[in-house]
This record gives sequence, C-alpha cells and structure tokens, in this order.
Amino acid sequence: MINACGILQVRTPGRGLLEITDQVAGWLRQHPLQSGLLTAFCRHTSASLLIQENAAREVRSDLETFFESLAPEDPRRYAHDDEGPDDMPAHLRTALTGVHLSIPIMEGRLALGTWQGIYLFEHRRRPHQREIALHVLGE
Amino acid sequence: MINACGILQVRTPGRGLLEITDQVAGWLRQHPLQSGLLTAFCRHTSASLLIQENAAREVRSDLETFFESLAPEDPRRYAHDDEGPDDMPAHLRTALTGVHLSIPIMEGRLALGTWQGIYLFEHRRRPHQREIALHVLGE
Amino acid sequence: MINACGILQVRTPGRGLLEITDQVAGWLRQHPLQSGLLTAFCRHTSASLLIQENAAREVRSDLETFFESLAPEDPRRYAHDDEGPDDMPAHLRTALTGVHLSIPIMEGRLALGTWQGIYLFEHRRRPHQREIALHVLGE
Repeated sequence: MINACGILQVRTPGRGLLEITDQVAGWLRQHPLQSGLLTAFCRHTSASLLIQENAAREVRSDLETFFESLAPEDPRRYAHDDEGPDDMPAHLRTALTGVHLSIPIMEGRLALGTWQGIYLFEHRRRPHQREIALHVLGE
Repeated sequence: MINACGILQVRTPGRGLLEITDQVAGWLRQHPLQSGLLTAFCRHTSASLLIQENAAREVRSDLETFFESLAPEDPRRYAHDDEGPDDMPAHLRTALTGVHLSIPIMEGRLALGTWQGIYLFEHRRRPHQREIALHVLGE
Repeated sequence: MINACGILQVRTPGRGLLEITDQVAGWLRQHPLQSGLLTAFCRHTSASLLIQENAAREVRSDLETFFESLAPEDPRRYAHDDEGPDDMPAHLRTALTGVHLSIPIMEGRLALGTWQGIYLFEHRRRPHQREIALHVLGE
C-alpha cells in the first residue's frame, strides 16, 4: 500500500483560474499506483480548487465573471476589509467553490473525464504563492 | 485492506436531481467492508453530485428552481455557448455544487444521515449518459 | 495501517459558523498517524462543513450575512416549508457549501494552513444536535 503526501507550490498571476492538472499528475508519477485515491487540499482561505472544462477558454472567463458578480467587490457590503476590497469577496468565492478535491485513480491514471481539468482558482487581485497539500493512498 | 474502483453508468432524463443512493450502495455490496471511505466522482463538467434530503419532493424542485435562478439561462451573460443556451449555466451550477463526494463507511454501511440521499444533478436540458467513478478503501 | 471511524456530537447554538477544529484534532489524537487522510461528513441536510479563516470575527459574520442574502428566507420563493421559513433556505445553503471535507495529514498533523479552521455551519435558526462522522486512514 502506498501512502504518500507532499506540497505543490504554485505561483498565481493574480485573479483567475490556473490549470494545475499537469503539476498534480507529475507529482502522482512519483508514487505510481494502479488503483487508489488522490486528494488535493488548498491551504488558503482566499483561493480554491475546482474541476472544470479544459477546452474552451470562454468557459473560464465566464466562470470568473460569474463569481465576481455573485460575490462582488463592494466595501459597503462587508465589515471585513483588513487586506483591501478584494479580501472578503475572496473568502466568499472560496466558500462557494471549496478547497479540497478527491479524485479516484483507476488503471494507473486520475479518473478525470475527457473535458475535465484541475484548476487553482485565485481570488485575490495580486499574484500569490499558494500551497496545495497532496495525498495519495492505494496500491 | 480492500482497494477497489469502478464506473457507475447513469442515464439522466434531462435537467434535475436523480437519486443514485441505491446504485452506489449496490456497487458497494460487491466490496463488503466494515470501516472505510467511499468516494464518488462525476466525470463531467455539466453535471454534479449532491447530498440532499430524500423525503419531500418539494425540496428537490425548490433546489432546481434556485440553481436555475442563481445561474440563469441568458445568452447575453455568457461568451461561451458552443452547445446552446444551457451550456454555460450547466458549468456554473456544476462549479457551485461540485463533482466529488466522500462518505465514511461505518459498521458496514454508508454513514449517511436518516434524511440524506446521494443525487446526480443533471444540468443539461436533454437526457445524457453520465459516468460516476467510484472508489472504496477500507477493510 | 490505521483505519478508524467515529461520530463527533456537536450542539449548535442556532444559525452561524461554529469552529470545531479542536474537537476534530482531539478525536484524531486517539488515532495517531504520520501520514494519511481525514474525512469529516455532516449527517444532515440543513447544516454543512466549511474550511474558513479562523482569525477575524468579521469574516464569519460577513459569510453568514452573504449566505442569508444569497438564499433568503422568503416563503414566496419556496414550495417546501414543512419545518418553517428557515427550512428550505437551510437546504440551499447546505447545497452551496457541502457536507464533507477531506484533509491530508502530514507529519502527524492536519495539513491546514495557518489561517484555516474547520467550521460547522448551522443553517437552522434554533439550536440543534449535529452528528459529524469522522474517518481516518493512514499510518
């Protein structure tokens, strides 16, 4: 039984969806197994993890626009603004999308569908260094 | 230690919540264990997985109405419409509800509460064939 | 390999975010392991689990206000009201935030970030007794 964990360091260029499927799959190749479970966990409260379509670029810009509209930057709405007007909306968008993903591994590969990619969703305006904890269990 | 995976094929009748608790529990009976973890993963970007109330039918219709209102069909809002006006809202509703579920197994059974069921949430208008990857680990 | 499960009983004081990080970490200390995966699962359809900021109190009140506004109490909107006007909004807020969390364990500790706490999000107005199923796997 393989039971391994590690940290993926990701530098985001600021707000938006950044695909990390290749980095996750690359880490997994260091722990080869036929069948098991991969878990990714974002160690932050203003960035989240999302499985989304990896083909049309417009899907990602529409997603970004949607969450900017659903939890808008608007200082009048929030009591919390310690780190600026994009601080509280970032927490809300993180709560709506979540910080963890669990993906089965089948026949030695992540069981992602054809059109699915793994994305780090940066909710702060400026670039950030983000840590994704990874864990795999199986054989 | 049992470490098994499989694919559940589900035909949806179009938009709405479809209970799949029995199919998941049926698959699990092929891999009997006392204690462990079940993970279900929907291999699509326009359908999601949800734990919700399995009693009152109105809960499900209210849920469907709510998500139709939160991420509405409205071509003016979205750049992406490759597969029609229900395409981008389907991606948004999937992002809001998620594609994976992990449920502990205790005393040989899924640790669902009395009123909880597992639902596949189809977000496209038309019927679709959906694949749910299942994984179980435990003993 | 450690493969253990249990139930955490939590009494909520009514609507709002209640931190349970210490209770979860306390349970985990009964099953010490260096590397593995912890899963928490809320056995209800009107309360959810959330990873959120554990520092500024305003983040939590802003989160509560946001979800009250996103899925408001408004009897005209919902067909389902078996348990009162806070019943259906509670289901919707649960669907938006989710009932399960999976967190890697690294070097004997939950891989939470510095500012992350585990919260039980009670969506009903009145106090409730809630059950969180916990599962850990690793060694």
